[in-house]
Amino acid sequence: MGTVVVGYVPKPEGEAALTKAIEEARLRGTKLVVVNSHRGGQDFDADAARRAESEMDAVKAKLDAAGVEHDLRQLVRGFEPAEDLISIAEANDAELIVIGLRRRSPVGKLILGSNAQRILLDAHCPVLAVKAD
Amino acid sequence: MGTVVVGYVPKPEGEAALTKAIEEARLRGTKLVVVNSHRGGQDFDADAARRAESEMDAVKAKLDAAGVEHDLRQLVRGFEPAEDLISIAEANDAELIVIGLRRRSPVGKLILGSNAQRILLDAHCPVLAVKAD
Repeated sequence: MGTVVVGYVPKPEGEAALTKAIEEARLRGTKLVVVNSHRGGQDFDADAARRAESEMDAVKAKLDAAGVEHDLRQLVRGFEPAEDLISIAEANDAELIVIGLRRRSPVGKLILGSNAQRILLDAHCPVLAVKAD
Repeated sequence: MGTVVVGYVPKPEGEAALTKAIEEARLRGTKLVVVNSHRGGQDFDADAARRAESEMDAVKAKLDAAGVEHDLRQLVRGFEPAEDLISIAEANDAELIVIGLRRRSPVGKLILGSNAQRILLDAHCPVLAVKAD
């Protein structure tokens, strides 16, 4: 059985990615691995850790309600999120990675974030990119 | 019933996109719309037109063999391929666009083509990006 792996951030594009990833895991009959990467470092203090924990509780509630088999990975290890996502996807024999993209800026600047580009180019499986509504 | 829309070019990444799009249309029980854009212009002479036609025959054979309902659109109208793909996806109420990405260059240059970026950022539905094997 393959897996769907999704990169989650507590932002509109991260929620959109999570919602889509739940649908895709259901459609494919696979397990869903949710990856939430924190860079760690000086900004990741006790407050940040508590906030991250409560965000993850909300994600866990959403996953439980969706009724898909899932695995929630919260990583604080200082790697780039792209590296975390790609290595977890490989380790889990992912058939699909789902990522959220930020909407274009109001001036319509045409730039994809470097993390998104890296995942799109380096992932060993297809990557599904979604935007927030 | 939604559709899956795929951008096809006669290159390894285009073949990979077509193969994946057939799988996705089957999985979702949707129709598949295959879009092949030519920019037209001076280079699109009788030879180019013949070559394009024989490429499309090969695509048609692959689609017929796959047994998914499909629609093959060959466009020669001078728009950017991204615009063609996005407008056809909208007109067909697409639930998914599939695109092929070129592999990174041997020196590992981290750049997504401008067409791919535009589709990822401007499409109104999720975009599945695949690379050639």
